[in-house]
Amino acid sequence: MVQIYPGTHAVPYENIDLTGGFWYEKQKLVREVSMQNVYRRFAQTGRFDAFRYQWREGMPNRPHIYWDSDVAKWMEAAAYYCKKQRDAELEAIIDDIVEEIAKNRSEDGYFNSYFGHLEPENRFTRRNDHELYCAGHLLEAAIAYRDATGKGKFLSLMIDYIDLIYRVFYVEKSAPFTSPGHEEIELALVKLYRATGERKYLDLALYFVEQRGTPVKEDVPGMIHGIAIQDHLPIREQKTAEGHAVRACYLYSAVADLALETGDETLFDTAKTLFDNIVRRRMYVTGAIGQTCVGEMFMGDYDLPNQSAYAETCANLSLALFARRMSVLDPDAVYADTAERVLFNSFLSGMSLDGRAFFYSNMQENDRTVKTRSYNSRHTLFTPDDTRVEVFQCSCCPPNVIRTIASIADFQYTADEDTIWMHQYFASAAHIGDKTVTVETAYPYDGCVKILYHGSAGKLALRIPGWCREYSLSIGGKMVTPQVKRGYAYLSVTGGDEILFRMEMPVRFVEAHPLVWDDAGRVAVTRGPLVYCMEGCDNAYPLRDIRLSESSDWRMVMDEALGVPVLETDGCVRHWNDNYLYGDCAALEICRVKMIPYFAFANRGSSDMVIWVLKL
Amino acid sequence: MVQIYPGTHAVPYENIDLTGGFWYEKQKLVREVSMQNVYRRFAQTGRFDAFRYQWREGMPNRPHIYWDSDVAKWMEAAAYYCKKQRDAELEAIIDDIVEEIAKNRSEDGYFNSYFGHLEPENRFTRRNDHELYCAGHLLEAAIAYRDATGKGKFLSLMIDYIDLIYRVFYVEKSAPFTSPGHEEIELALVKLYRATGERKYLDLALYFVEQRGTPVKEDVPGMIHGIAIQDHLPIREQKTAEGHAVRACYLYSAVADLALETGDETLFDTAKTLFDNIVRRRMYVTGAIGQTCVGEMFMGDYDLPNQSAYAETCANLSLALFARRMSVLDPDAVYADTAERVLFNSFLSGMSLDGRAFFYSNMQENDRTVKTRSYNSRHTLFTPDDTRVEVFQCSCCPPNVIRTIASIADFQYTADEDTIWMHQYFASAAHIGDKTVTVETAYPYDGCVKILYHGSAGKLALRIPGWCREYSLSIGGKMVTPQVKRGYAYLSVTGGDEILFRMEMPVRFVEAHPLVWDDAGRVAVTRGPLVYCMEGCDNAYPLRDIRLSESSDWRMVMDEALGVPVLETDGCVRHWNDNYLYGDCAALEICRVKMIPYFAFANRGSSDMVIWVLKL
Repeated sequence: MVQIYPGTHAVPYENIDLTGGFWYEKQKLVREVSMQNVYRRFAQTGRFDAFRYQWREGMPNRPHIYWDSDVAKWMEAAAYYCKKQRDAELEAIIDDIVEEIAKNRSEDGYFNSYFGHLEPENRFTRRNDHELYCAGHLLEAAIAYRDATGKGKFLSLMIDYIDLIYRVFYVEKSAPFTSPGHEEIELALVKLYRATGERKYLDLALYFVEQRGTPVKEDVPGMIHGIAIQDHLPIREQKTAEGHAVRACYLYSAVADLALETGDETLFDTAKTLFDNIVRRRMYVTGAIGQTCVGEMFMGDYDLPNQSAYAETCANLSLALFARRMSVLDPDAVYADTAERVLFNSFLSGMSLDGRAFFYSNMQENDRTVKTRSYNSRHTLFTPDDTRVEVFQCSCCPPNVIRTIASIADFQYTADEDTIWMHQYFASAAHIGDKTVTVETAYPYDGCVKILYHGSAGKLALRIPGWCREYSLSIGGKMVTPQVKRGYAYLSVTGGDEILFRMEMPVRFVEAHPLVWDDAGRVAVTRGPLVYCMEGCDNAYPLRDIRLSESSDWRMVMDEALGVPVLETDGCVRHWNDNYLYGDCAALEICRVKMIPYFAFANRGSSDMVIWVLKL
Repeated sequence: MVQIYPGTHAVPYENIDLTGGFWYEKQKLVREVSMQNVYRRFAQTGRFDAFRYQWREGMPNRPHIYWDSDVAKWMEAAAYYCKKQRDAELEAIIDDIVEEIAKNRSEDGYFNSYFGHLEPENRFTRRNDHELYCAGHLLEAAIAYRDATGKGKFLSLMIDYIDLIYRVFYVEKSAPFTSPGHEEIELALVKLYRATGERKYLDLALYFVEQRGTPVKEDVPGMIHGIAIQDHLPIREQKTAEGHAVRACYLYSAVADLALETGDETLFDTAKTLFDNIVRRRMYVTGAIGQTCVGEMFMGDYDLPNQSAYAETCANLSLALFARRMSVLDPDAVYADTAERVLFNSFLSGMSLDGRAFFYSNMQENDRTVKTRSYNSRHTLFTPDDTRVEVFQCSCCPPNVIRTIASIADFQYTADEDTIWMHQYFASAAHIGDKTVTVETAYPYDGCVKILYHGSAGKLALRIPGWCREYSLSIGGKMVTPQVKRGYAYLSVTGGDEILFRMEMPVRFVEAHPLVWDDAGRVAVTRGPLVYCMEGCDNAYPLRDIRLSESSDWRMVMDEALGVPVLETDGCVRHWNDNYLYGDCAALEICRVKMIPYFAFANRGSSDMVIWVLKL
C-alpha cells in the first residue's frame, strides 16, 4: 500500500504569482474579457436578480434551482482576482449580493434563491434539486472572498447556513435524504474546516461521503438513487468510476481531501482505485471524461467513442481537481500528468480563444455528416455542438472555467518541510515557507524550464512528464543525474541554485489501448502536453483518411489568425476514383497537413475535426 | 446515352435447372427446412388463418395489415418449387388459401385479410397501410402458381381484384391517394401485363410510378408523403436513392421494367442514375443498403456507419432485384456484379446456415460493448440484433429469402436472338430458345467455370466479375482473347463448344472511398465474390486491432463445424501493457487469424464481428 505522505500540503495560488507565458495570458484574458462577459450574460438572464427574491409569476427569467451555483462560481473567480489585486467594481457586485443574502435568508440561516424564495415549504426535500450543491459553491465563494478581502460577512452568513445543514442532516437527520443528489458540498466543507479549524465541518463532509450507498430513508417522488449519483455502493466499495462524471469527481475529490485530513488509508485506497479506473480505462486522450450524454455519465472500460463523446467541460475539470488533490496525498507523477492533460486540452477547449464563449460538451471528433443523418428523436446518436456559445441554460461550465484559470497556480506545487514538488511548469514566482522558487519557461510550446531557488537547503522534486522521453538537468550549469522516483526527479538544492530542466519536445504519436475500438489503427499526435487535431478548414482532404508519419518533418509555425503555434507536415491521402465506392487498395499521394492544438479547435466556424489519425 | 438493348429478355428460372453446387444446396435446404419452418411459424402466429376471416375480438393473433404479403411470398416460393416438381402437400395449402380468398373476398373482387375482414369501410383510405403492397405480392404469387401448376383460380381472383384497383385508382380516381405508400404492386403489374398481354396493367403500373411526387389529393390523418416513400419528386426528377430502402428499390425495379416494356429512355436514365447513386455512394461492401433504422431509410452519400447499420434483408435483396432488371436493359457487368455482391453476402446473411432462422437487420460490425452502453431511449444508438430468429412480428424477410432462393436461377442469364449473357456462375443446365448451356463450377469458392454450349452458332457473353483481375478463356482447349465490352467477354460459339473460363481467385483487399469515415485506413478482405469477416469466437484478440497483409500466406480450409470453407492466415496485434490507456506506439506480435464468409457470421452464438480490418 502506498503511504499517505505526512505533512504534505498544497501550495495555494495566493503564494504564487504568474509572471508571464501561457497561463498568465489566459488569466489576463479571463480578467479582461470572460469575467465581464459571463457577468453580463448572467445579469441578462436574471441570475444575479434571483438573489433579490423579487421574481413574480409572469416575469421573465424565473429563478432556477442551480443558478446560485453559477453566480457563486463567478464570485469565487472574482475573489481570486481580488486576492491578487483588490477591485472595487467586482467587490461592489459581490457586496451587493451578500446584502441580498443577508436580507432574504430565512431566520434559521437558510438561503437558496430558488427554494427560499419560491418553494420554502419544500426545502431539503428534493435530493436531485441541487440545494446542497448550491450551498457548497456559495461556501467556496464566501471562503475565497473572505481570504481575498478580509470581509467576513459573506462567510459568516454561509456558516449560519452550513450550521443549519449540519443540524438538519447530521444532528436531527430530519431530511428525507441523507446525502446530496449532486455532490460538491463535501469538498467545500473540507475547505471550511481548514478555514475555521472547526471539526464539525469535517465530520459533516465525512458523514455525507459515508452515507452514499446506504439504504434510502424514505422514497420520495422525484428522488434519485443509484449509480447515476454514485449511490449504488458504500464509498469504500466503489471500485469503478460510475454515473454522472462531474458529481463523481467532486465526490472523489472530497474522498481524497478526507483521506488527507483524517489519515484514513481506506479512503486513500478508494480514491486511488477510482482514479486508476478513470485514467487507465475511461478517459479520452484529451483528459475528457463522462463518455455519454445519457445522465452525463461514465460508460464502461475502454468504451470511448469519439463521435458521440459528451466530455462536459465541468467533468473534465473535475478530474483535474481530483488529480490535484491526489498529488498532495501521493507523490506519483500520474496525478499531475493527468491534471496537465486535462488543463491543456479538454479543460481549455471549453473556452473560445477570445475568452467570450464556452463549450458544455467537448467534441472528440467532428464528422459533420453525422449531424445531418436522418436519426429521429427515438434514435438519436448524440453529437455535441461544434460552436461555443456565450451562455447556456445550464451554465455551470463558463464560471467553472474562469474560477479555475483565476486560481490555476493551485496546480503548481505541493510541499512538506523538506521537499517542494513542482507539478506544473508555469512561469511564476512562488513563496513556499521561507523559500522562493522562480520559474521561467515558454511551456507548453518549449520544454526548457529555468528555475531559481532561494531559501534554506532542501529537496526540489521536478515532475518528469509522462509524455517526456528525453531530458537533461543541470544545477548551476553542471549536469546532474537525479534520483527519479515515481515520475519525480529529486534534486538537492540550496539557496541561489539555478536549475535548468530541458525536456525534449518532439512530435510524439500516442496509441490507445487495443480495446478502444474507435482508436484502433490510429494515433493521437502530441507535442509536450498538447494533443493536436486536424480541422477541415485547414486541410482540403477527408480528415479521417489522412496518414501521418511520426518521423516526417514537423514544423512548428505561428498561426497569426489563430494566435497559437501550430504544426505543419506532409502527410498522405489516397488517390481515389470517385466513380467507385469500393476498389483496389489505392496509391497514396502527398498532401500538406496542418494540425492545431486541440484546445484551439472550433474557433473558425463549424468544421470537421479529427484527433485520431492514421499512421503511415 | 446508353441505348436500351432491343429484344433482350430475361431467361426465367423455369428454363434453368441447378445441377449442384452452392445455390443447389441452398435450394435444397430451403425446400427441406425453411419452407416448413416458415410455414409452421406463420401458421402458429395466425397468418394463414387470417385468410379465413374468422378472427374475433379477444382471440389471439389479430390479423395485421401486412400479413397477406408474408403468406403471399411463402406461396410464391412454394409455386417455384412446384414448377420444378409438383407437390401435393404444398398445393393443398395454397388451394385451401385460394378457396378462402374466393369465399371471403368482396363482391367487387376486393381481398385483404385485414381490411376486408376488420375494416371494410376503410379500404383504400390509408396510404401507409400496405393494401396495394399486399395486393402486389398476392398477384406475384398467383402468377407463379398458375405458371407452376396450370391452376388458374388464384390468378383469376387476383385479376378481379386488380381490375377493381384499376377502376378505383386509374379510372375513377376515387381513393384519397394516387400511388401506394409501400411500392411493390408496380412491378407485379408488369408481371401481370407480361402474363396476360393486357396493356391496362402496364398503364396502371406506369400511372402509379408517374404519380409519385405529384401534389397530394387530400390530406388524410396518418397519410404519409415525401421523401420517406419516394414521394418528394416526380420520378424522372429523382436523382438520389432516398427514403425507405425496400420501397425505393421496388419502385426503381418497376421503373426499369417499365423502361424495358415502353422503351421510354427517360425512365431508363432515371433508373440508371438511381442505381449509380446507390452503388457509388450508398451501399455497404456486402451490398447492404438502407443505412439507418429511422424509417428504414437511405442516408447520405458516403455515410455508411458500420455499427449502427440497418441493412434490412429485404432492402439488400431489393437492390439485387433492381440490378437484375437493369441487366436486361443494359449489358454492363456492374449490374450483375452488384446482384452477385448482394446475393453472396448481405442477402444470404439474412438466413442462418441451418435454414431455420433469419435476420431482419444485417449487422455490418458487432462491437458487443456498444449494446451495453448506457444509452437510454432518448439517445439510442441503434444496433441490430446479433441473433437470427425464426419469425418476427414484421416477418417480410424470411419468405422473401426463400422465394428468391427458390427462383435464384432468374439471375443467371439474359438473351436476345444472337447473344446469351451469362451473368452469374451457377452450376446448371439451361434451355434458351433452341440452345442449351450447361455450367459446371465450384463457384464461389473456385473460379473455374466449365461451359458446354449446344445449338446454333451465336455469341456467349461471359461476365468478367468486377472483383476479377486475372483470367483465361479457352474454347475447345484453345486459348482465346475475346473482345471485352463493359465487363462482358463476348465469345463466338457454335454447337458442341466447350468453354473453360478460369478466374484467378486470390484473397483481395478492398478499400472504401476516402469519404467513408468508418472504413478509412481499413480494408475488407474478399475472395471472389465473398466478403469475409472476423468473429470473436474464432480470434482471441481485439478484432478491430488485428492487422492483416494481402500478401501473407492465406490458407482456405474447410471449417467442419460451420460447413463452409474459411480463410486462415497470420496477422499482427499490438503488444500492450494493460496498465496504460494511452502510450507509445506498441510493438506488433504475430497472431493466428481466421476469417469466415460474411454470410456465415452469427451462426455460433453472439460474438463480436468485424468486416473492415487494419492493413499491415
